[in-house]
Amino acid sequence: MDGIDVLVSEVGPRDGLQSIAPVMPTAAKLDWIAALVAAGVREIEVGSFVPARLLPQLADTGEVVRAVRHRHPGLHVAVLVPNAKGAEAAIAAGADKITLPLSASETHSLRNLRRTHEEVLEEVQRIAGLLGACPEGTRPAFEGALSTAFGCTLEGEVPEAKVVALAERLVALGCDEVGLSDTTGYANPAQVKRLVRAVQAAIGPERLSGLHLHNTRGLGLANVVAGLEVGITTFDASQGGLGGCPFAPGASGNIVTEDLVFMLEAMGLRTGIDPERLMAARAVLKAALPGEPLYGFTPDAGLPLGFRRAA
Amino acid sequence: MDGIDVLVSEVGPRDGLQSIAPVMPTAAKLDWIAALVAAGVREIEVGSFVPARLLPQLADTGEVVRAVRHRHPGLHVAVLVPNAKGAEAAIAAGADKITLPLSASETHSLRNLRRTHEEVLEEVQRIAGLLGACPEGTRPAFEGALSTAFGCTLEGEVPEAKVVALAERLVALGCDEVGLSDTTGYANPAQVKRLVRAVQAAIGPERLSGLHLHNTRGLGLANVVAGLEVGITTFDASQGGLGGCPFAPGASGNIVTEDLVFMLEAMGLRTGIDPERLMAARAVLKAALPGEPLYGFTPDAGLPLGFRRAA
Repeated sequence: MDGIDVLVSEVGPRDGLQSIAPVMPTAAKLDWIAALVAAGVREIEVGSFVPARLLPQLADTGEVVRAVRHRHPGLHVAVLVPNAKGAEAAIAAGADKITLPLSASETHSLRNLRRTHEEVLEEVQRIAGLLGACPEGTRPAFEGALSTAFGCTLEGEVPEAKVVALAERLVALGCDEVGLSDTTGYANPAQVKRLVRAVQAAIGPERLSGLHLHNTRGLGLANVVAGLEVGITTFDASQGGLGGCPFAPGASGNIVTEDLVFMLEAMGLRTGIDPERLMAARAVLKAALPGEPLYGFTPDAGLPLGFRRAA
Repeated sequence: MDGIDVLVSEVGPRDGLQSIAPVMPTAAKLDWIAALVAAGVREIEVGSFVPARLLPQLADTGEVVRAVRHRHPGLHVAVLVPNAKGAEAAIAAGADKITLPLSASETHSLRNLRRTHEEVLEEVQRIAGLLGACPEGTRPAFEGALSTAFGCTLEGEVPEAKVVALAERLVALGCDEVGLSDTTGYANPAQVKRLVRAVQAAIGPERLSGLHLHNTRGLGLANVVAGLEVGITTFDASQGGLGGCPFAPGASGNIVTEDLVFMLEAMGLRTGIDPERLMAARAVLKAALPGEPLYGFTPDAGLPLGFRRAA
């Protein structure tokens, strides 16, 4: 795998901050994002177009998208949208990529979003319509993200055939790409390989955009290795593992960007990200969120003596 | 890989306790070992035959070996020995397996054991002589464990050719098997695959006994996945990640048995170990070491809803 390019998509400013109570000021978010870009991060999910009363932390998403586009023209600016209304706002702000989550577990979908699969798929169709009307060169990429794809805390096992069928529906209704999310930290490496291969076979490998893995049971990076084995080259991660400590301390949610980048670069895979500068971005984040625990093994242990990045 | 048997070799009672200051009474060690055996653990490194004044924690190793052999006739009882004198004691006590560590980094060997490679290799030869004199059916297996095989905190990179050459010497001088240890937590999955393949090619896959991996930079289980990909079926682990928190909290040393067993069983690989009963053994350990931090993600998060062990 030596020399392959891997895209580490930073989701901290959205997925990370989403579960943090103290609202980070817009200026602090922009400083953190600037530090991430300086470290070489090429794609960042900067926010979510949800109603401000539901998520005050992300109420400034439009402002953040506009500022970031201006300051970092080369950055791929991604946002989450729960519906067509959010997609409209994302298009207006100039996002490069919009991601709509669809929970493979319908129980989870009903409980958390109060919507059936069919209702979410109708939103997908509406968003595809909006995107079709975008002027040439302004249309963002459209990803359908299958959450609870590896299991659900309410339903338990989620049949792989259901995940594959939903992936096909998403593409048929207008998604450019489909992502698989281990929302619950249930995935294991054998399952990752099996499900990725099944989805690749159904919609084509070029339409499986990447994996969003959690480290809830410590298997996050092991699942990345499994993903790499079957050709995945995009992985979400969150700086400091921000965004989800659903259990006791140490049992983080998102995989930690610092550990992921160290692993990939040590393996000879090119992320474009400088691990030392990533630590500088971590310091910016830490200063902006005093008292909030940040996770990661590599930040504690430091880089190995004589460590070299991928050539 | 479905249905393959994997041996999880528990090193907590030796490698784990070794770095703990309060000496655990022999009876408590035996209770913990009994709980591990009840969970299905098939091999345990129960101690080390080093001078008692150097390591009071393991001064009762002879007594532990004898008691464990009597109580758990089916258990594979492993011990560490630093030299031929230790091997003599191990043979007398009736160990099933003796492991002699040899640091691939000579600087590390000199600094930690005050011995050159040649001096350690002379001990190997002496031990092979002792083993040759064992009566039929009483001869323990003899493993040479190459520590710092994936890098050294003093030398940095350890050339793979050096590791391969030392593995060949160990076998030539009488070791039945060679193990590779990531003593420093420097290993990455690409390196694991590369080095395992190189050693397999040199001494034969049947003589590469297993991997001893650390989780210092969070890559422990990712490195296990890499090992599985190239045919490794024995992995050391320590309950609660005991034995080495060389850095800040959370940056544990040994990979955590609870997380490893969960991952392997979830992957459909048979460890013979019941994750629920392993938690009971953890409770025994916790009671015996009050105040000592135990690590692991799965113990905090619990097993996934609907989790099934490998068939």
